[in-house]
Amino acid sequence: MQKKSYTLIEIAEFLSAPLHGEKKCLIEGLATIQNAGPKKISFIDNPRYRKYLAATKAAAVIISPALLEECTTNAIVTENPYLAYAKLAQLFSYKQNTKRGIHPSAIIGKHCDIAASASIAPHAVIGDYVTVGENAVIGAGCVVGEHVSIGKNTFIYSNVSIYHHVKIGERVIIHSQAVIGSDGFGIAKDQEGWNKIPQLGGVIIEDDVEIGAGTTIDRGAIEDTWIKQGVKLDNQIQIGHNVIIGKHTVIAGCTGIAGSTTIGEYCMIGGGTGIGGHLNIVDHVSLTGMAMVTRSLDKPGVYSSGTGLQTNEAWRKSAVRFRQLDTFAERLNKLEKRLNQGDNS
Amino acid sequence: MQKKSYTLIEIAEFLSAPLHGEKKCLIEGLATIQNAGPKKISFIDNPRYRKYLAATKAAAVIISPALLEECTTNAIVTENPYLAYAKLAQLFSYKQNTKRGIHPSAIIGKHCDIAASASIAPHAVIGDYVTVGENAVIGAGCVVGEHVSIGKNTFIYSNVSIYHHVKIGERVIIHSQAVIGSDGFGIAKDQEGWNKIPQLGGVIIEDDVEIGAGTTIDRGAIEDTWIKQGVKLDNQIQIGHNVIIGKHTVIAGCTGIAGSTTIGEYCMIGGGTGIGGHLNIVDHVSLTGMAMVTRSLDKPGVYSSGTGLQTNEAWRKSAVRFRQLDTFAERLNKLEKRLNQGDNS
Amino acid sequence: MQKKSYTLIEIAEFLSAPLHGEKKCLIEGLATIQNAGPKKISFIDNPRYRKYLAATKAAAVIISPALLEECTTNAIVTENPYLAYAKLAQLFSYKQNTKRGIHPSAIIGKHCDIAASASIAPHAVIGDYVTVGENAVIGAGCVVGEHVSIGKNTFIYSNVSIYHHVKIGERVIIHSQAVIGSDGFGIAKDQEGWNKIPQLGGVIIEDDVEIGAGTTIDRGAIEDTWIKQGVKLDNQIQIGHNVIIGKHTVIAGCTGIAGSTTIGEYCMIGGGTGIGGHLNIVDHVSLTGMAMVTRSLDKPGVYSSGTGLQTNEAWRKSAVRFRQLDTFAERLNKLEKRLNQGDNS
Repeated sequence: MQKKSYTLIEIAEFLSAPLHGEKKCLIEGLATIQNAGPKKISFIDNPRYRKYLAATKAAAVIISPALLEECTTNAIVTENPYLAYAKLAQLFSYKQNTKRGIHPSAIIGKHCDIAASASIAPHAVIGDYVTVGENAVIGAGCVVGEHVSIGKNTFIYSNVSIYHHVKIGERVIIHSQAVIGSDGFGIAKDQEGWNKIPQLGGVIIEDDVEIGAGTTIDRGAIEDTWIKQGVKLDNQIQIGHNVIIGKHTVIAGCTGIAGSTTIGEYCMIGGGTGIGGHLNIVDHVSLTGMAMVTRSLDKPGVYSSGTGLQTNEAWRKSAVRFRQLDTFAERLNKLEKRLNQGDNS
Repeated sequence: MQKKSYTLIEIAEFLSAPLHGEKKCLIEGLATIQNAGPKKISFIDNPRYRKYLAATKAAAVIISPALLEECTTNAIVTENPYLAYAKLAQLFSYKQNTKRGIHPSAIIGKHCDIAASASIAPHAVIGDYVTVGENAVIGAGCVVGEHVSIGKNTFIYSNVSIYHHVKIGERVIIHSQAVIGSDGFGIAKDQEGWNKIPQLGGVIIEDDVEIGAGTTIDRGAIEDTWIKQGVKLDNQIQIGHNVIIGKHTVIAGCTGIAGSTTIGEYCMIGGGTGIGGHLNIVDHVSLTGMAMVTRSLDKPGVYSSGTGLQTNEAWRKSAVRFRQLDTFAERLNKLEKRLNQGDNS
Repeated sequence: MQKKSYTLIEIAEFLSAPLHGEKKCLIEGLATIQNAGPKKISFIDNPRYRKYLAATKAAAVIISPALLEECTTNAIVTENPYLAYAKLAQLFSYKQNTKRGIHPSAIIGKHCDIAASASIAPHAVIGDYVTVGENAVIGAGCVVGEHVSIGKNTFIYSNVSIYHHVKIGERVIIHSQAVIGSDGFGIAKDQEGWNKIPQLGGVIIEDDVEIGAGTTIDRGAIEDTWIKQGVKLDNQIQIGHNVIIGKHTVIAGCTGIAGSTTIGEYCMIGGGTGIGGHLNIVDHVSLTGMAMVTRSLDKPGVYSSGTGLQTNEAWRKSAVRFRQLDTFAERLNKLEKRLNQGDNS
């Protein structure tokens, strides 16, 4: 799917990084260092791939200065090869054939303000009072509720559902099947059962946010749920009502965050993590995968929970003992006491 | 998004609760006690918000009798402020502009019985032999399979997929991207690999059930999967084939329930919980978030599993020790024996 | 929903298994052994259902030879009753009314090659350069990106989203709301925040794969994400970029697999499992539900993690002690040392 080709000097200039090698060498795509063919460029970031450098068939590699000596092919040298790879991938990425304008099969509400350069794909359904900014793309089958605003250059993939009163910033990316603005899980009990609490708030998605496939973000109960600038959310994440996520925090897939929790800036949250409601997590907290968070965290750092993997046979024993831990503690206390008292009868 | 306004006496009468204060005071919306502006009404349920009562700018608050003395603004007094808030939120909730009738872009199958007061939104696709009750709403982009019945006043949001032979009751709410009636995960092995077992059952969703965004409910293998009256399901829940969930049970997001498990009435299941297959859980069981349930529960009560959060450094040590627990137990036994025998050589 | 009827001898011949009983007995459907009515056929596989055999009202049962003696009704005898049930269920399964050809409301791109026997349902949107094989079905509201190929007899349910450059084999089943080919979660940090890394790879889904409702499979970063022949994925599974899953592996719902992990053949992965990135898991590994996998597994076998369920009261004590485990180990060491040294002062 990578069609275009570039000379090595074009690439080096695009990356603002020095080229060691043949300027006119033609590059037709990116590849991994171990599998690269002769017209590909590769990179080394993770040190465990260094062993492939000597024998690579890549036409060129992006490497750190330390590796230049052992490189036998053309090299582009930079302190951060991973970031350079991220930028270079933009050159070779596939551009979808998105047509400007509103497809005739799309249904558009009243009082909408849709930029002429925006693209509304087939079978999209747009409610009343919706604004769509310049160059924004709304994918096929998307449904956008009333009073929604979508900023410039935002790209929404197919079959996304956006409820009413949601504000989406610029350069936001929303992947397929995501839901923005569904009702928060608010219920109140009476004698018979549960009463639904209508969710009066909305959702704010700031600029440069990315939202993964199948991720759901509930609207606020009274005030808004709020995803701040530059937040990156992976697939199948659940964000409860009135959650606030600080700038540049990244969250891996399958994580769930219960209502009214606030998460700071530059946090890194591993996949499958569960975070309880009404908690406050400060900036620069990292959580390893599948962490269970039931209290607020007021210090930056890396946190974890769970038990490591064992064979099922060994694990069954550990699991039984876990339930006995409190009696172990008592027995330890008693032993120490007896030994301290010289009582060994 | 809250447009309408009401006088305080109108609100007090709507809630059947006494008003202490100015009858004609005009209320334009609900707000949190700490952020309320001068035309808003608020409430206090959680005692940790009591501290905001003295200084609130709200025009009125809904409070319990115990707080009346320290209230400096208009007050509506009730024993259950949270329930009163739930009811009041209905007054201020945004009413979507759903049009009665079938949108011309919707595709309707043969032999359908769709009430004149029902709404079938743009690009919905309805299969043959479908019945839709009075005032029911089927959102844009929904796909409804053959032989499905949808009860009166049921509201289905956009892009929901309902397979064939599903029965949905009255006043049910189904949020976007939910899937009802997909095949259960039934496979049988032969020498080469796995054979799919066709799933012959359907799904029954009783009255007053709410189903969250992205939640999936599989059809039964032979008999039906069955969600009973008043059950509330949050987002991204997975319900396996032939699961039965008892009346008024509530389940928080990201929970998965494996096939053929029966859950009782009035259970409360925390988010991210996993429940194994072929289990039986009695009425009035609560599970804390991320609980792992691998056995039936025959007594009501609160159950939990997992380990609490630690710094990664401390957790690594705990995790290593967890795997040594069985040897710890043996060592404890040995120590106690030696001490009891007076053997300290 | 089971309409057709068969004689017992027709069923026995279909299953290539001997019939003990009345050849012309008419069977109208499958049922569970405990609930079967007089025109139904049932089966016993799980020994805990054997107790229902004597009193069953089923017209016939599929049983193993060992149970024939205690069977009081017609019997079809086979060594693998569960596999026989799986095959028989095909006879009674409901056939949806899928119409050949392209529905007039579907939008088809340029340069597509769609077999005449294929079915493209209402409101589906097909991009440019898409090929669809013989008898393949693309459900209502599906969106298929550019340069996608879909093999013969593949069935895609409603509202599925497939991005560009995805290859799907023959006899594949994809359930509603699944997403194939969304961007992998690739980001690189600079001074200000996170840069998106365009995902240049695609996705390969081989023959006979089944993909559950709401499951998401990301496209590769550079090379392809790859789901091999006969893999069965349940609902709401998340597959990260460049994951490779070996033949005939089955994965239960709500499992997440992080990027670049390779899983072997014939693995069985329980629901709610989390598997970290860049790991390698060999063939024939089983993981129990909610397992947390943070290291490669180079030996077949059954693996587990987590703690068993306790009452909340007991669990709170265990959880506190878990955090003290490392000090317990030290205290045990000290006690043993003292006892060995005869030091009990």
